[in-house]
Amino acid sequence: MGFMQKLQEAIAGNNSLLCIGLDPDPERVPRGLSIARFNRAIVEATSDLVCAYKPNLAFYETHGVEGLRALEETVASIPPEIPIIGDAKRGDIGSTARHYARAMFVSFGFDATTLSPYLGFDSIEPFIAYADRGVFLLCRTSNPSAKDFQDLTLDGHCLYEHVAMKATEWNTHGNIGLVVGATYPRELAHIRQLCPTMCLLVPGVGSQGGDIEAAVRCGTDASGANAIINVSRAVLFASSESDFAQAARMSALNLRDEMNRHRVSR
Amino acid sequence: MGFMQKLQEAIAGNNSLLCIGLDPDPERVPRGLSIARFNRAIVEATSDLVCAYKPNLAFYETHGVEGLRALEETVASIPPEIPIIGDAKRGDIGSTARHYARAMFVSFGFDATTLSPYLGFDSIEPFIAYADRGVFLLCRTSNPSAKDFQDLTLDGHCLYEHVAMKATEWNTHGNIGLVVGATYPRELAHIRQLCPTMCLLVPGVGSQGGDIEAAVRCGTDASGANAIINVSRAVLFASSESDFAQAARMSALNLRDEMNRHRVSR
Repeated sequence: MGFMQKLQEAIAGNNSLLCIGLDPDPERVPRGLSIARFNRAIVEATSDLVCAYKPNLAFYETHGVEGLRALEETVASIPPEIPIIGDAKRGDIGSTARHYARAMFVSFGFDATTLSPYLGFDSIEPFIAYADRGVFLLCRTSNPSAKDFQDLTLDGHCLYEHVAMKATEWNTHGNIGLVVGATYPRELAHIRQLCPTMCLLVPGVGSQGGDIEAAVRCGTDASGANAIINVSRAVLFASSESDFAQAARMSALNLRDEMNRHRVSR
Repeated sequence: MGFMQKLQEAIAGNNSLLCIGLDPDPERVPRGLSIARFNRAIVEATSDLVCAYKPNLAFYETHGVEGLRALEETVASIPPEIPIIGDAKRGDIGSTARHYARAMFVSFGFDATTLSPYLGFDSIEPFIAYADRGVFLLCRTSNPSAKDFQDLTLDGHCLYEHVAMKATEWNTHGNIGLVVGATYPRELAHIRQLCPTMCLLVPGVGSQGGDIEAAVRCGTDASGANAIINVSRAVLFASSESDFAQAARMSALNLRDEMNRHRVSR
């Protein structure tokens, strides 16, 4: 079963658009707990409430080899029916991208990964060649400096529009999606219009300030689905005490239900 | 001592612009040899001939955690006076970039790293805040698809020119350089003109087809230095037999000398 189908089944099965970003900030993980144990507790408390998990590799690489071992353990702790998006934002020339693709899909075993589009098609192709895996291209990101390059109007269209259009053109295997920040609902709505059937990964809700209602309304497709709304800190660090897993569950439950209230078939 | 000074001393000390890309393609490393041992043999045979080494993380991540352990061993095998550029092309939102910066500069201990500019300033800032380390922003890359986005134009300027101009503006610590492929000598010459004093990292000579003379003439500054010309496969796999290290040394020696023949103070 390919990534996109696995994702749709998880969205339907758990009735959820919520993706939890497994980003164990070392300054906020409860003392005395390893990253792998922290993540496992979060996963055990929330895996019936999410459509996906998204570990960002920075939070593992920051600890060197030991951190990456914790990432392996984290991947192993996630139930097989829940897709895992390795948020790595890689991008390199074709002959190198081949090795990154193997790293993400074979060595770490992710169902999907995020990619930076700056190097163009040959940096993406080795990833989409894994037709049963998914790829999310950075399009309009959630950070304040996204405007530095992504909003430049080049040959009549913003850079991020060029990326969205190219992604559509490249999507012959049906396994490409786009990353669009919830912090820019107007751009999100615009990209949804440009790419009506593409899967959108929408980070930026919660600590980054993105609004849930706008993320769901602008990010979902005509069926009220096909969008992954990511929340990291607001779930992971809902409590800094020993009840962190229960608090994460309550937060995830509330987020899922609030997202569902805004889902509309159009 | 900061990265840029360490680099200039290595260029002067070894009289070399040659950077060897430590990219141990699993299909080409001699059988029976671990990556770490292969790299150590290459380093021992060439460390008096280079200005830097540049391991690309894809070739380690492809092996998962074991590959990253080999990367650690490789870093440890490089003499301390030779700068190491971790070629990782990372790029993420500020709060995450902080962890990638720690991964590159503290956990893996690189002197410099490569970054993708797609997310703008806040994705770069946590790296340049390590004022004694170096950062190379992807500008005009060496691959065929570089044109997909990098050549789009606004007000008569390509995206890659906007990146070059922003990099100049952001370079308050003097630790930013640019990645510009040797496969596009016209663009390389143009970027050198736009950024006359910036350090340029120039990949693409050798297997990718870039010409050495053009790389050196177009990439160096007015003093005939301040450019790092990277070669990977043509050195690493100069021989596929047990004499690979001697063959790598001969190849590196020839490359260094050929590069020096084209260095001109203008």
